[in-house]
Amino acid sequence: MFDIEVLDTTLRDGAQGEGIVFSVRDKIAVTETLDELGVSWIEAGNPGSNPKDLEFFRLASSLKLTNAKLCAFGSTRRKGVKASDDSRLGSLLDAGTQGIAVFGKSWDFHVSEVLKVPLQENLDMISETVAFLKSEGRIVLFDAEHFFNGFSANPEYALSTVTAALEAGADRIVLCDTNGGTFPHAASAAVQAVALEVKKIKPDAVIGIHAHNDCGVAIANTIAAVREGCNHVQGTLVGFGERCGNTALAALIPSLELKMGRRCLPEGNLVRIGEMTRRIAEIANVNISDDMPYIGAHAFSHKAGMHTDGVLKTERSFEHINPADVGNERHLLMSEVGGRSALVNRVKKIEPAVHKDHPAIITLAEKLKNLEAEGLAYEGADASLEILIRKELGKYTPKFNLEGYRVMSEHPAKGTLACSHAWVKVLVDGQHEIAADEGVGPVGALDGALRRALTRFYPSLEKMRLEDYKVRVIDGKEATSAKVRVLIESTDGSRSWNTVGVSADIIEASCTALADSIEFMLINGEGRE
Amino acid sequence: MFDIEVLDTTLRDGAQGEGIVFSVRDKIAVTETLDELGVSWIEAGNPGSNPKDLEFFRLASSLKLTNAKLCAFGSTRRKGVKASDDSRLGSLLDAGTQGIAVFGKSWDFHVSEVLKVPLQENLDMISETVAFLKSEGRIVLFDAEHFFNGFSANPEYALSTVTAALEAGADRIVLCDTNGGTFPHAASAAVQAVALEVKKIKPDAVIGIHAHNDCGVAIANTIAAVREGCNHVQGTLVGFGERCGNTALAALIPSLELKMGRRCLPEGNLVRIGEMTRRIAEIANVNISDDMPYIGAHAFSHKAGMHTDGVLKTERSFEHINPADVGNERHLLMSEVGGRSALVNRVKKIEPAVHKDHPAIITLAEKLKNLEAEGLAYEGADASLEILIRKELGKYTPKFNLEGYRVMSEHPAKGTLACSHAWVKVLVDGQHEIAADEGVGPVGALDGALRRALTRFYPSLEKMRLEDYKVRVIDGKEATSAKVRVLIESTDGSRSWNTVGVSADIIEASCTALADSIEFMLINGEGRE
Repeated sequence: MFDIEVLDTTLRDGAQGEGIVFSVRDKIAVTETLDELGVSWIEAGNPGSNPKDLEFFRLASSLKLTNAKLCAFGSTRRKGVKASDDSRLGSLLDAGTQGIAVFGKSWDFHVSEVLKVPLQENLDMISETVAFLKSEGRIVLFDAEHFFNGFSANPEYALSTVTAALEAGADRIVLCDTNGGTFPHAASAAVQAVALEVKKIKPDAVIGIHAHNDCGVAIANTIAAVREGCNHVQGTLVGFGERCGNTALAALIPSLELKMGRRCLPEGNLVRIGEMTRRIAEIANVNISDDMPYIGAHAFSHKAGMHTDGVLKTERSFEHINPADVGNERHLLMSEVGGRSALVNRVKKIEPAVHKDHPAIITLAEKLKNLEAEGLAYEGADASLEILIRKELGKYTPKFNLEGYRVMSEHPAKGTLACSHAWVKVLVDGQHEIAADEGVGPVGALDGALRRALTRFYPSLEKMRLEDYKVRVIDGKEATSAKVRVLIESTDGSRSWNTVGVSADIIEASCTALADSIEFMLINGEGRE
Repeated sequence: MFDIEVLDTTLRDGAQGEGIVFSVRDKIAVTETLDELGVSWIEAGNPGSNPKDLEFFRLASSLKLTNAKLCAFGSTRRKGVKASDDSRLGSLLDAGTQGIAVFGKSWDFHVSEVLKVPLQENLDMISETVAFLKSEGRIVLFDAEHFFNGFSANPEYALSTVTAALEAGADRIVLCDTNGGTFPHAASAAVQAVALEVKKIKPDAVIGIHAHNDCGVAIANTIAAVREGCNHVQGTLVGFGERCGNTALAALIPSLELKMGRRCLPEGNLVRIGEMTRRIAEIANVNISDDMPYIGAHAFSHKAGMHTDGVLKTERSFEHINPADVGNERHLLMSEVGGRSALVNRVKKIEPAVHKDHPAIITLAEKLKNLEAEGLAYEGADASLEILIRKELGKYTPKFNLEGYRVMSEHPAKGTLACSHAWVKVLVDGQHEIAADEGVGPVGALDGALRRALTRFYPSLEKMRLEDYKVRVIDGKEATSAKVRVLIESTDGSRSWNTVGVSADIIEASCTALADSIEFMLINGEGRE
């Protein structure tokens, strides 16, 4: 379908990155995101290794995927066991995926010292495993573990593992730089040798590469392999994975498409690669480095005078591609012009008459700078930004005043009472209302009480609910008195909006974000003022 | 002196990275750090472009550098001006450095469209500038700007700029991938062509490379160039610089020294590269990515069961180098994808007699998997893991029971009372103690109250304090009833330890982590039981 098959292993090798933990729901969300971007394969876990992956595959079988095929991952059969009797291979089949990736040893040293079986037995394990899975009608990807080390130590044996897999019917031969110590020239030479075997034995098999970034050359190794005829590339969109991570697909795919003319994604999807990568980073709760190639916030930032000057004369003078091709933007750092233009653009949605030198724009730009220095981040909280803009333009009448609240958490809980209780008092049009609620945690209780108090005045709030709640500690080193930033996503069933709150008190930060969220719904639900 | 000359441009190209701002004092500190590490050259700024750089060079002239030579950076002479009359070249000389780097255009497109001079005039500018600086007795580095683009667009002209510099006496020809769009195979071809020119015209001139990371292949381009005879490499230790940054020297130098056998630093200094890189990152106020090759915190972290198992059998099975060679360490992570070997290894620190099939290990492995499925992550919480292991081994007597607590948050605050108040009741050796405290937020108040109650029994807790507090929402889509994971780092002044707690109630999750943290200090402070 495409020139290059992309296999994303965020859910398998990515989950082996330190600090990466996915819930089953996270895994579903990652799968949907990768399918939306349009990768060919999603390697989603090892059903034999843990109950979460098993549960995932059960749920995933009912997902409707448009672009991607799912792939389960596991090892070749156990030593001394028939493939059809090996329960781990049984789990792989039970996962019910179209593809199955099995890894086998290609480095003689690993066969003797880690697996501890004779070299021939390892070849039998590969060949019987692949043949068994093929007989069950699956697309089989053979991951030749440590292939590049093996090829350098004992090329003949390394190639014989590939031959064994090909003769048993493997559809993909994936050369893995498991330890990440290989350089591009060595990767090229190894792929050349494998390409000859493939041509001889099973010309329709596809060669793949799975690189790790321990020398900082995972992307270069992958590009070198593609130049030698490899048509299947593996990695993780963000780049995280075991140790220094896998090939960062978001930094690789634009090079393959834009510079090597090799199609990897459905037409028109390359511009969404940054958005999808950030979505996965959010789910994994990691940051995308600002200087990440192509999609990073700084990837097209020009700071040196000579550079901004050159770019203003002719863009390609200091840009290797057009940032718009990957959905990114140019930033000229020497001028404040870029920043204020974006703000004017946003303010115009509320007040079409503003211009760049309008006093409200100048004050707002200053205020935003100060608030962001305090830890507020409006780029993910457009609804809070709108409230701030309205206040500055004098286009804001508060829908309610939160006079005060009390939140109590008590452990152990008593009888049928929940652990957390909240009490709030609001003022709307001169009338007070007091309400209370309980919850599992203090923020849930506060949210409930606030909504109860206001629903008397604004029945439309019945429809509103919270969709997402995120907490980030801004300065961890202050320990429990560190500031936290709370981001909340709310919905009324048809649209969603985001608000933010910052405080050294997590309850207060949450309350600010909750109150902004309710204000936003009320302002917009009753028409613009 | 060395096989490869390293030029660090943290203070010049690095300072062109978005968000990087150095004071003059910062620049001095970076210079001293780089000299201590032992790079050959420090490119320290453009004295013609700003007063800060001028001031720096004035102060730097009195620094006693052991290993590094300083280098000022600027452009070739202005068009239509005699080199000796150009005030910018005058500033370069005034900087008083041993080396001067001048950049000139190598891409015909840039000569016509940006510089807007005839092609011959550009050659004259290069040749006269180099000759003038040589006549003043300096080591001259000619930076061939956009060389790789130029070589691909008009190879003859690109090479003629190099020839002009060589004939005028340039000591170093530095090929710059200014826009960062070049791939390794193209870099190799260009260096080969330049090497022929050098051999013909000035065989003692050294070829250098200056790469940018816009395609994620800066390190690979540099390695490719070195393989073709380039003996001078440029970059910034951390990797920051214009747009996606420069070649990250901390990730490159270990490959050159350990894998290619090319000496870059004074003997014995490679093990300090991580420490020096972190020092510069501190000065620049940026983070070093955990997955940075060689020096990152995760660079030698093994998480998958097969990997930890392999490393315990023989280290090189899953490590491309010995972490100690670059002053880093191996970490075996406990996690659901981890196997029993890492666990056995960890348990042995408490109970040396355990083995892989010990019943406690089997139960613990199962328990860990289930706890992680619920959202606990022990890989960053070794102290909580130790408590869990001790419980399983029957080597644990609780130092206290937390009978209950109440936490109250109230807004607005009243009089001199803080917003948050906590009350706790503990039981130690049959005696109850009740204590209370207040704080900015509920967690701080709870921490205070718990410590007050226990200090009566354990005065050593006076020394303990929290160093870091992190909150992660595990499943954001449950909104305010989502589970949160709290990670706490504590210290007694000499050592630090980490604990974890998970709950849908942030107060409860924090309380678990706090209680574990106190338990851990008490267990270890009073000797192992």
